[in-house]
Amino acid sequence: MAEPKQPDLMEKIVSLCKRRGFVFQSSEIYGGINGFWDYGPLGAELKRNVKELWWRTMTRQREDVVGLEATIIMHPQIWRASGHVDTFSDPMCDCLLTKKRFRADQIEPQSGTAYRFWTAVSFDALQNAALKVQASADLWSRDKVIACLGTAKTREELHDRVRESLAQAKGWMSEEHLTTFHSAIEDVLSTVGDLEFSVLLPQGKPPESARRTALQFYAQRGIKDPVLIGESTEKIENSTRFNPDNGSLLTPPVPFNLMFKTYVGPTATEADVAYLRPETAQAIFAQFKNVLDTARQKVPFGIGQIGKAFRNEVTPRNFTFRSREFEQMELEFFIKPDEAIEAIHGAVITPGPGHPGEPQPAWGWQAWHQYWVEERVRFYEGIGLSRETLGFHHQTAEELAHYARACTDILFKFPFSKKDAQGNVTGDELEGIAARGDFDLSQHQRHSGKPMEYFDDELKGAFAKLAEAKKQELLERFTAVKRGDFTKRGYKPEEIETKAREAAERLSKGFYVPHVIEPSAGADRLILALICNAYREEMIPDSKGTPELRVMMKFHPRIAPVKVGVFPLLKNRPELVAKARQIFELLRPHMTVQFDDAGSIGKRYARQDEAGTPFGVTIDFDTLGEKPELLDTVTLRDRDTTQQTRVTIGELLPLLLEKLR
Amino acid sequence: MAEPKQPDLMEKIVSLCKRRGFVFQSSEIYGGINGFWDYGPLGAELKRNVKELWWRTMTRQREDVVGLEATIIMHPQIWRASGHVDTFSDPMCDCLLTKKRFRADQIEPQSGTAYRFWTAVSFDALQNAALKVQASADLWSRDKVIACLGTAKTREELHDRVRESLAQAKGWMSEEHLTTFHSAIEDVLSTVGDLEFSVLLPQGKPPESARRTALQFYAQRGIKDPVLIGESTEKIENSTRFNPDNGSLLTPPVPFNLMFKTYVGPTATEADVAYLRPETAQAIFAQFKNVLDTARQKVPFGIGQIGKAFRNEVTPRNFTFRSREFEQMELEFFIKPDEAIEAIHGAVITPGPGHPGEPQPAWGWQAWHQYWVEERVRFYEGIGLSRETLGFHHQTAEELAHYARACTDILFKFPFSKKDAQGNVTGDELEGIAARGDFDLSQHQRHSGKPMEYFDDELKGAFAKLAEAKKQELLERFTAVKRGDFTKRGYKPEEIETKAREAAERLSKGFYVPHVIEPSAGADRLILALICNAYREEMIPDSKGTPELRVMMKFHPRIAPVKVGVFPLLKNRPELVAKARQIFELLRPHMTVQFDDAGSIGKRYARQDEAGTPFGVTIDFDTLGEKPELLDTVTLRDRDTTQQTRVTIGELLPLLLEKLR
Repeated sequence: MAEPKQPDLMEKIVSLCKRRGFVFQSSEIYGGINGFWDYGPLGAELKRNVKELWWRTMTRQREDVVGLEATIIMHPQIWRASGHVDTFSDPMCDCLLTKKRFRADQIEPQSGTAYRFWTAVSFDALQNAALKVQASADLWSRDKVIACLGTAKTREELHDRVRESLAQAKGWMSEEHLTTFHSAIEDVLSTVGDLEFSVLLPQGKPPESARRTALQFYAQRGIKDPVLIGESTEKIENSTRFNPDNGSLLTPPVPFNLMFKTYVGPTATEADVAYLRPETAQAIFAQFKNVLDTARQKVPFGIGQIGKAFRNEVTPRNFTFRSREFEQMELEFFIKPDEAIEAIHGAVITPGPGHPGEPQPAWGWQAWHQYWVEERVRFYEGIGLSRETLGFHHQTAEELAHYARACTDILFKFPFSKKDAQGNVTGDELEGIAARGDFDLSQHQRHSGKPMEYFDDELKGAFAKLAEAKKQELLERFTAVKRGDFTKRGYKPEEIETKAREAAERLSKGFYVPHVIEPSAGADRLILALICNAYREEMIPDSKGTPELRVMMKFHPRIAPVKVGVFPLLKNRPELVAKARQIFELLRPHMTVQFDDAGSIGKRYARQDEAGTPFGVTIDFDTLGEKPELLDTVTLRDRDTTQQTRVTIGELLPLLLEKLR
Repeated sequence: MAEPKQPDLMEKIVSLCKRRGFVFQSSEIYGGINGFWDYGPLGAELKRNVKELWWRTMTRQREDVVGLEATIIMHPQIWRASGHVDTFSDPMCDCLLTKKRFRADQIEPQSGTAYRFWTAVSFDALQNAALKVQASADLWSRDKVIACLGTAKTREELHDRVRESLAQAKGWMSEEHLTTFHSAIEDVLSTVGDLEFSVLLPQGKPPESARRTALQFYAQRGIKDPVLIGESTEKIENSTRFNPDNGSLLTPPVPFNLMFKTYVGPTATEADVAYLRPETAQAIFAQFKNVLDTARQKVPFGIGQIGKAFRNEVTPRNFTFRSREFEQMELEFFIKPDEAIEAIHGAVITPGPGHPGEPQPAWGWQAWHQYWVEERVRFYEGIGLSRETLGFHHQTAEELAHYARACTDILFKFPFSKKDAQGNVTGDELEGIAARGDFDLSQHQRHSGKPMEYFDDELKGAFAKLAEAKKQELLERFTAVKRGDFTKRGYKPEEIETKAREAAERLSKGFYVPHVIEPSAGADRLILALICNAYREEMIPDSKGTPELRVMMKFHPRIAPVKVGVFPLLKNRPELVAKARQIFELLRPHMTVQFDDAGSIGKRYARQDEAGTPFGVTIDFDTLGEKPELLDTVTLRDRDTTQQTRVTIGELLPLLLEKLR
């Protein structure tokens, strides 16, 4: 983690990102758009390097993983099968007064006294009723109205009160006026809805403020000059039902789906609804069979994909960490069910702690899960995120989705990460590595009616050779697991047993729906982690010995946006510039190089330090042979140590290539 | 272009794409989704290679271009400024009968006789009116109704006819019944709308079929058992107002915006509307100032971007050529206005034919435009698309957008490309290189209120030194150009002169909105071109001399998804396999390699030929020293010639790296 950790560290990082062209607010000239961020020149290079490295590590360099690039808009059925249409939502509620929308689960609990009203009547309408019988406006003054109606608790009570009040008027009002008046008032009351409303007041606040809020509420609903009816109070403890800003009651929480919706095709009917994918994973499952049929892979094998995903987050926050458009780097690694491993190998290898080493045929899901957690940590270490900067969260049984066997989150300790009860920064999620069983493929099999089974020749042979008792025992166990799965997935009770037995029968013939381990990483979160991790401030003496602030982005050379800066010592000496251009052209086919001849050499170093360029090459008069023994040598400056070494031009390229590996 | 060019060549290509995992239909297991395509393992690698090469060529290897990665969803104002909200649409019309939607500009013109009806009345309702007066149902039989009402041309005429008909009934119907009957019929007629409808019949088709169609139309609109009113006919020549399938009249064309629309944020009000970008270019313009401020570039310089874009095409077609989700590779190259060049350099260099060579400071927009056309052609040549496979289209004055100075389309001759009047295949667009003037930046300046000007120190200095007459002449010319621009952009007449003079005044002080040359390529179209270009069928003798069909993808090694196949001659000889694994590991860090030991060596070659792998390395017994002089040599097979060369393991890697450059 970057030092020093001041409260405004994130602000400094955001500012540097904009100043140096790592990250800009999307559509900034139009005031921006909340939850969307663009990568400027340096950021775009950084992100490309990271994605390229992920792709190389996770697919090209592995014989057991192939790539896929699927569309963002897919058939909407995919999101029914995956469960996103039904359950990918946040609970939202609206303030009844201001209409402001809240995420119900993010409201701070409030305590105090709730003032409850069951409705309001229009004083204005009552007055008009009085005027109909040419009675003076104070026949029913506000005080009288409140005294007469204000405490009514039900609609009947309201009418009773009116009748009582009119009974008193019988002495002095003509029978005809009385009838007209009564009927006019009953008209007014008939429009009174059961518009219950409450206002929460913290301890000690005067009831009047609750009443004022309630009057506003009823006035908004078209009740002209409202009189509150049926006030009652209640003690409230830790409730999230009220707007923390104004105490107004909120609507009950309603699920708000986080998928962006659009329409495909020239008509915009319900049949044309489509979604922007909220994750890249489902495309992999949907294309599993096509890939299996074409890629000449056998289980265990994986399919990797990098691509954009979209979530209509209610409260995007923490710079690029939680944004509405983001990029994922996902691997779905398909494995045999443990029962298949046991049938083939006699037993499932269970891993000890740490990296379990090279993949073994007898690995079950636990070993594979652990393997991928460790592989992913190695990846992060390989680009400069040391283990100390990371955290781990092993999801508990309550946190896990019903189909998941396990999920380990790899966290990074961001400057905005909160501390736990013990005062330790735990970090925020960079990647989740989930063991998802066969949930996804099975769901697509169910919804599409297309088989997602894999035929395992080895398994078929193994079952043929297995002792009958062992075979039965294994299949019974498999049936029990499937029974549980099908129950949790909401199959009809009468189907469950048949389907579970069917699956076991298929297993014994070598067929199964593969299980999956899913390392799913967020590219933008990783970029933010790398930026936060790289940020350094140091006071170093300038050329005159005065301490000066140095800001440096300590990116690992593998991912640094620019690898080398090439500097002729002086801009106005053509022979220095020409030599520097030669060196620039020498390096350029092999790495990203920047030529810079503007300003003092110190300024140029500082500029590259801020951009995170790990190496600088300076061409000076010695390069040209001022000291003959230094002819054709240059200084190579290391960003992190600021040390300069003299190297020959001949050894420069291999040396740099070695450092960048 | 691939030979042989049979009519079903595209089908073969589509089939190979699916069979070998280049391209799958998106969401295929759910029946697909029209206009969306996924890249399978080989396709994903091919596309990555092409995009990587574009990025390297267009940004990393150039000092005058930097990269950007912006979001797909941006502030909706961007699409107002760019003109997409108002004008990015196709004219659509609906069949009045079937509701089928058509692109108005794609309807084949029809000729024949149009049968026109101005409305219809419900025979059923008329019958009910008769029953009200207990008259028999044939009081007003269908024939009588048609005779009486059918030829009425107006609403008045309809009522007159009814009155006439009732006058005849006066003799035998009671006065009371007559009144009831009349009023009931007038009720029926009062609901008759002016529902004009026409049906076009081709020469020689009986009128009855038009009437049947019209009856269907009126029945659909709730007129029970309709009787047609006011039939007339008209000769029609080359009209696109009728549905070619059924002759039914179409609705008038209405513009249909091609942008996918969605809503951002927790409420879905009009204020939350956002669009999926229909092009990547606008993000570059919107971030122009941020990039300029951070990237230390001077005009001329460019900003490149690769990313997805979306268009809700009415009729996606030609495999991946016209799809609804696609990827663009766009460069916006910002240049000085010609008047600035002239002020600085005295004159603008005008290019001769061909590549104008290395950029010169005195290049005007024409030289830059030509330069980028030629650079892009070189790029295509560099990945295997020879000049003969390409075509060029120089947009005519009528085709050009009002702000564009010129646009050259680079075409590829696809198997589905049409022939021109001379019988030559012209091709379909791969890339457009447009000279867009300062339109885009100016529009964003206008809509955002943020200055998009560039300050050109050199220009300011040049103007200071310029002879007054020359200065005035230049500024007058610039003013005239701006006057034209502002007029075309719809500025108010009273603003135009002031704004044009203002711009000239700014120019004289060194400020201008840069002009832009835009090479805009479609990544998916290019991939399809590369696939079509690579497809080869050959009859070659098999091991027994029998001619056998060989399908080969002749990809340029630079972009081939897999570079080398490594094959141990026999799978069951561990020493061969071990040696082959060694060579595999030797090559793998440097290129995409596939290890294949399954099946005969001929089968393995054929497999790699179809995948487009340019090289194959076979490890045989001579490699192990069966012939001692061949110890540690392997055969290197060339896909295109099928020639095999014996090379030492030591020279293998440098040799391959050289071939892949």
